[in-house]
Amino acid sequence: MTETARFFTQAEPIRFEGQDSRNPLAFRWYDKNRIVLGKTMEEQLRFAIAYWHSLAWPGGDPFGGETFLRPWMHGSDEMALAKHKAEVGFELFRLLDAPFFCFHDRDVAPEGATLAESNRNLDVIADIFAEKMATEKVKVLWGTANLFSNRRFMAGAATNPDPDVFIYAAGQVKHAMDVTKRLDGANYVLWGGREGYETLLNTDLGQETEQLGRFVSMVVDYKHKIGFKGAILVEPKPQEPTKHQYDYDVATVYGFLKRFGLENEVQVNIEDNHATLAGHTYEHEIATAVALGIMGSLDVNRGDRQSGWDTDQFPNDPTGMALGLYHLLQGGGFKTGGCNFDAKIRRQSIEPDDLLIGHVGGMDVCARALLMAADMIEDGVLPQFVADRYSGWQAPENQAILKGERSLEDVAKLVDEKGINPSPRSGRQEYLENLVNRYL
Amino acid sequence: MTETARFFTQAEPIRFEGQDSRNPLAFRWYDKNRIVLGKTMEEQLRFAIAYWHSLAWPGGDPFGGETFLRPWMHGSDEMALAKHKAEVGFELFRLLDAPFFCFHDRDVAPEGATLAESNRNLDVIADIFAEKMATEKVKVLWGTANLFSNRRFMAGAATNPDPDVFIYAAGQVKHAMDVTKRLDGANYVLWGGREGYETLLNTDLGQETEQLGRFVSMVVDYKHKIGFKGAILVEPKPQEPTKHQYDYDVATVYGFLKRFGLENEVQVNIEDNHATLAGHTYEHEIATAVALGIMGSLDVNRGDRQSGWDTDQFPNDPTGMALGLYHLLQGGGFKTGGCNFDAKIRRQSIEPDDLLIGHVGGMDVCARALLMAADMIEDGVLPQFVADRYSGWQAPENQAILKGERSLEDVAKLVDEKGINPSPRSGRQEYLENLVNRYL
Amino acid sequence: MTETARFFTQAEPIRFEGQDSRNPLAFRWYDKNRIVLGKTMEEQLRFAIAYWHSLAWPGGDPFGGETFLRPWMHGSDEMALAKHKAEVGFELFRLLDAPFFCFHDRDVAPEGATLAESNRNLDVIADIFAEKMATEKVKVLWGTANLFSNRRFMAGAATNPDPDVFIYAAGQVKHAMDVTKRLDGANYVLWGGREGYETLLNTDLGQETEQLGRFVSMVVDYKHKIGFKGAILVEPKPQEPTKHQYDYDVATVYGFLKRFGLENEVQVNIEDNHATLAGHTYEHEIATAVALGIMGSLDVNRGDRQSGWDTDQFPNDPTGMALGLYHLLQGGGFKTGGCNFDAKIRRQSIEPDDLLIGHVGGMDVCARALLMAADMIEDGVLPQFVADRYSGWQAPENQAILKGERSLEDVAKLVDEKGINPSPRSGRQEYLENLVNRYL
Amino acid sequence: MTETARFFTQAEPIRFEGQDSRNPLAFRWYDKNRIVLGKTMEEQLRFAIAYWHSLAWPGGDPFGGETFLRPWMHGSDEMALAKHKAEVGFELFRLLDAPFFCFHDRDVAPEGATLAESNRNLDVIADIFAEKMATEKVKVLWGTANLFSNRRFMAGAATNPDPDVFIYAAGQVKHAMDVTKRLDGANYVLWGGREGYETLLNTDLGQETEQLGRFVSMVVDYKHKIGFKGAILVEPKPQEPTKHQYDYDVATVYGFLKRFGLENEVQVNIEDNHATLAGHTYEHEIATAVALGIMGSLDVNRGDRQSGWDTDQFPNDPTGMALGLYHLLQGGGFKTGGCNFDAKIRRQSIEPDDLLIGHVGGMDVCARALLMAADMIEDGVLPQFVADRYSGWQAPENQAILKGERSLEDVAKLVDEKGINPSPRSGRQEYLENLVNRYL
Repeated sequence: MTETARFFTQAEPIRFEGQDSRNPLAFRWYDKNRIVLGKTMEEQLRFAIAYWHSLAWPGGDPFGGETFLRPWMHGSDEMALAKHKAEVGFELFRLLDAPFFCFHDRDVAPEGATLAESNRNLDVIADIFAEKMATEKVKVLWGTANLFSNRRFMAGAATNPDPDVFIYAAGQVKHAMDVTKRLDGANYVLWGGREGYETLLNTDLGQETEQLGRFVSMVVDYKHKIGFKGAILVEPKPQEPTKHQYDYDVATVYGFLKRFGLENEVQVNIEDNHATLAGHTYEHEIATAVALGIMGSLDVNRGDRQSGWDTDQFPNDPTGMALGLYHLLQGGGFKTGGCNFDAKIRRQSIEPDDLLIGHVGGMDVCARALLMAADMIEDGVLPQFVADRYSGWQAPENQAILKGERSLEDVAKLVDEKGINPSPRSGRQEYLENLVNRYL
Repeated sequence: MTETARFFTQAEPIRFEGQDSRNPLAFRWYDKNRIVLGKTMEEQLRFAIAYWHSLAWPGGDPFGGETFLRPWMHGSDEMALAKHKAEVGFELFRLLDAPFFCFHDRDVAPEGATLAESNRNLDVIADIFAEKMATEKVKVLWGTANLFSNRRFMAGAATNPDPDVFIYAAGQVKHAMDVTKRLDGANYVLWGGREGYETLLNTDLGQETEQLGRFVSMVVDYKHKIGFKGAILVEPKPQEPTKHQYDYDVATVYGFLKRFGLENEVQVNIEDNHATLAGHTYEHEIATAVALGIMGSLDVNRGDRQSGWDTDQFPNDPTGMALGLYHLLQGGGFKTGGCNFDAKIRRQSIEPDDLLIGHVGGMDVCARALLMAADMIEDGVLPQFVADRYSGWQAPENQAILKGERSLEDVAKLVDEKGINPSPRSGRQEYLENLVNRYL
Repeated sequence: MTETARFFTQAEPIRFEGQDSRNPLAFRWYDKNRIVLGKTMEEQLRFAIAYWHSLAWPGGDPFGGETFLRPWMHGSDEMALAKHKAEVGFELFRLLDAPFFCFHDRDVAPEGATLAESNRNLDVIADIFAEKMATEKVKVLWGTANLFSNRRFMAGAATNPDPDVFIYAAGQVKHAMDVTKRLDGANYVLWGGREGYETLLNTDLGQETEQLGRFVSMVVDYKHKIGFKGAILVEPKPQEPTKHQYDYDVATVYGFLKRFGLENEVQVNIEDNHATLAGHTYEHEIATAVALGIMGSLDVNRGDRQSGWDTDQFPNDPTGMALGLYHLLQGGGFKTGGCNFDAKIRRQSIEPDDLLIGHVGGMDVCARALLMAADMIEDGVLPQFVADRYSGWQAPENQAILKGERSLEDVAKLVDEKGINPSPRSGRQEYLENLVNRYL
Repeated sequence: MTETARFFTQAEPIRFEGQDSRNPLAFRWYDKNRIVLGKTMEEQLRFAIAYWHSLAWPGGDPFGGETFLRPWMHGSDEMALAKHKAEVGFELFRLLDAPFFCFHDRDVAPEGATLAESNRNLDVIADIFAEKMATEKVKVLWGTANLFSNRRFMAGAATNPDPDVFIYAAGQVKHAMDVTKRLDGANYVLWGGREGYETLLNTDLGQETEQLGRFVSMVVDYKHKIGFKGAILVEPKPQEPTKHQYDYDVATVYGFLKRFGLENEVQVNIEDNHATLAGHTYEHEIATAVALGIMGSLDVNRGDRQSGWDTDQFPNDPTGMALGLYHLLQGGGFKTGGCNFDAKIRRQSIEPDDLLIGHVGGMDVCARALLMAADMIEDGVLPQFVADRYSGWQAPENQAILKGERSLEDVAKLVDEKGINPSPRSGRQEYLENLVNRYL
């Protein structure tokens, strides 16, 4: 690959060199064939590279323009540029030895004058993808449609006041689903970037969420119709770009799914950065999804604790990630999902290798976290502590309460009858926090 | 009432004196008999005074102790003090001409050595309440049980790892419901102050929310059994005192209710301060509850925008309140609910009259907001703008989509067939914001 | 002006029509010749229009592109487009009857291949400005240099690790100051958009703030050298685009100025949105600047309370603005400063008239706030309350303490000698908040 | 020590057992005699135990009361209880092998009816401290006066509108300084818990900060007068309990010190939890203090990322702590300061041993962080990267700019003369973040 060989300095895939390596372009923790909890690290983590941030973002921010000066962003032949981008993309996947990638329709192929033309552009690039995937190991973790960048979506896609936008969005999603199926994607994702509002003053919140329910229902039906075997995933985010997004967090998405009877059809794609923007921890969102039976996939990028917007940074905290993976693994680990890097290198990281280094660091953090989470489970102290703490509920008379076999009156009577006067027990939070650090 | 006549300087109920009044102990906007949207202001707003903050809080904060030195908080005969407090409380209700009050069991009567004794203490005070209510106008908007202050509840009540605490809580709630029914309360409230967690490390989130579902289900069954006609209300709050509370916000509570089949049995009591702590506006939470059919009652106290905890201040922003009431009224206004002041005067407001002045200001803000909201509705420009914005959905072919009569493919095809290429229209946010200021 | 007459529907300047007007393109409160506290409203408020947000922002955000499709942003002759933009700009100023505007060098004229060419481009447009200003009423409130958009500034301007960037920035600022002086600007502003850091890992904070101190010192010296009569203003902002900006808030800027002996040479330009992002209220920042003697000018645009980034919205809260103006007026009002709208219409507000309507609403909010602030001052209750609260300090023995004539020992002895046992007095916050609402 | 031997299960001081230890009451990282950067770990870290949170806090929060039921908090003889508390305290210090402790006057001895009586109470306990310190290793890191808990301080101490409160505070501080000197404290701390405001409506911010400047000036003078050799430290905190505290953050305190000419007399005591509440990282605050020459001491307790108030938790993130200690060590390490645990065990951690375990974990986190920071410094890659990044400034012509030998014009001219057109270089943030994880 002549062109991209010139883009990255690296020609050979990144390799595992162990913790003592000082090579910034080597894995120190991610040893893909190492067995962890009965699977290889590669199978447990199922890493995916995000096409958009890595390949389609020029390095701009609200106060400044392009910094990266990618060669495939400068030229007049948009399809040629898209092909160039695909070349670099697959070179990136190869160098990172990544088992998966993810894509938005509009990030891989340019918008045409009509939807039909856009669809044709996408098909051309999808053919290139299919051809490359025939010889490369990389697969599609998920595909999705970009329903937020074009100005037609400025007031939402499925939730737009204008039904024509809903219709247009349906046309676009149908095609993106078709392409994802053709590329054998493991999932199809819906992120409602503009499914929300800027001001309630011009918004009928009830109407809009009805529209959204209908849209997702149609997507689910279509999945079954075409025999797409992957999962449909909704990605929660509380806000940004809008002031309020309907898919605020995992609990909110669950309520939405229940409202439209979709809780067995749709799962969530949880992002660390979105979790913290919503006022939660990553592990909270994962544990909630596991408890509610809707855990699907992960975006492993983090936010900056002092910044109030989506910074989409590569993960760098093994402990925080380990707590998230612990809950994921306790819930059975990934089925169709994986760890996607919906992550941007910083705007100032203008060297091509920064793109590799960001991913290498992120993959290492996840790998180290996986080892920690596996230790927590195998050591057993933490899960056993929790099980013991609730063990009183195993008593038959308490099970009867939980099963709905006792009324409030029945239960209330027990206080007097049994002389119940509960004596609190230590929650031992400091002990448990120290314990977690032992696994680090 | 000799004792409390000495507590407040004011002897006569606060009166409406109109906007030009400079009397801090007069209403400038709250004219209780004024008709607004077909009801009196008193009927629309249904003000309630919260027993706890007004009468049971000594003025402490995490960094300092009591400042108020209330006479009924100093003495050794707890029941005598509780009676003294009730005297002052009803004097407060009378001076404010308040149609309602709200109470926690433990704020009106002292905790006894056993639950049975606590219940007896509560009954004694409830008798006093009943006696006073026979001659005073004030009624009970809602009663509730305090399941968070006593150390037995430090790890939760219904969600406690120890089933004995669940049982104890059931005993306490049953009695509080009985008392609320006896006093003809319009609602019964559940606020899960410690129904959440401090750390996920010691918490089984799935187990705990199952317990909570069971508990609320038992409460609903009991309501029907005893023929309590009021509504059961859950009060969302995202956090504090715990790190995370399960009833995070309205959308989360809705999901919880759907999960346990309770969405037609339980409504929400929405607090402004809790809304902002959860990252929402008050009007968002109200509009969401209206859209989901679970709008119940309001706590009208606000937070401080720069403080990250529950400050429970009296409302002072008529516009923000008006936007909330606008959505409430668009949804039909209060049925069993009302506007409760779950509000504290500041710790430095140590004069007895500060308690009156805080409420007077808050009631005036709500009254002014009600007039604004009524103007918005009667003027019609705002609701019409929104209706027009979505009017495209009224077309039969678009209704067919919403009704589920079209598949994704059906809809997708329309893009080409009809040559759909949506042209965005201005959201006119600045125009609408200026319009709102016109009603101020 | 044929071209722009077609841009806005409005041909005549917006007029004052009074509170009952329902014309969205009329002032309801801003009556420019009305005398308030001894000056006209126009003289008190000194409104300015920001060239960049109104004319140079295409309506993009981090998740989507242009929405406005301004005719002067599409074409290949950049200087012709810049002239077209100036035409529309002056039409905007005329329609709003604005006494001032503000500009960044790069927003009025395109970047050239070299700094010299950029400077020449700026001079060409400055000539057009000068020509128009000769016949129009509008003046320059302040000029400034954009030292953050071009990728050369990605790691800062004055604080860049590369001295060449510092030098380049000096060249750019010198020219922007020259142009501002030529146009008789009332102030020159420094906003350090990238004077901060993304990560401390690559940053020498001590070195960078030394560089910044030197840069501002050179600017001050140059001002005196060329005889520029306006004020030099630094604009505090805590973050965004960077993770941390050195000019975090007013108190931080004060410390910076003291460190470099600049506290009598430089003042602050305070923005509401920046104040709230820094965890403060607007009135806090203004009161702090007044107390420290560095109050300069105001950007009156607000943030969104639920969004963690700079939304730059038009002000819509008269009370909040009134509290800010109250402190400004108590400190003597504007000298060289004014009320600048560093405000964007929302991305969905794509009608040309939305630009007028946003400003009309903002000007009305400020005018209404000015009337409120003037009422607070003239009524005198609020300032008198504060004066009374501190009156004990007027006693000669207490003045002696404040003047430094007493040691800790001297003072400590008084406790025993005078039997001092302070009795707290009510802070009366609720009374004062109600009082403020009386002026609304 | 019969009494407290019964309080903790542990009788022997906690020992270092190495990383593989599974003993929750052993150090895994803190090996006090290990040499790190030329000193023992004990000398580098200078750990201190905070008397108040460990011994004087009953486990209450704003929504619930006491949970700990400490024996020394129940009884009628306050001085006997204070002595009991001191016994347990010194047992705690001994078990933790702590070189230092810190205290507030009112946490060690009860408030009397007059200041004189309070002072006498304090002296009695100080005598006990002195006696114990004669035989134990523990020393005083700092003393301070509690000027925030008593209701007389509800509106501030030094900044109180009532000069009598200022006088009373002066009396209290003088005595606390005397006691600290007598106990050979290494520092004296001022935390302005209520030196701020609840509402600007009743506040003269200029007057109050003048008062504060006077107060701190008197404290500094008194230090010199009595020959106290320790440092005077101000502890920044942005808010809580007040809405706004004047000592907001390090940069604000610096400006305050400069304003009153105290920057060479006073340093800062920086707390992680206060840093994050102010919107900063811990390392930012430390690096800022180092750059400004006012770095004094550290409170190493952290906040909870999702809670908007001061949670005062034991540190559990080695990496975050390492970044802070890196800047501390780059600035020369502690002189008089140390690492104080201003940390509370959680309210549910009701077992006596939880108190030990919290400290053990915190000490281990700091020790591990110290090793990381030392590695960063000794490895040299990180400091060298930063030095290289700014190396252009070493050129004589650029040094001349920094030294003030060049005017804006001189510098501006260079752009043309030298054809300066800066080419940005990668900030390499991802590389550096990966590098930091290498030291973990």
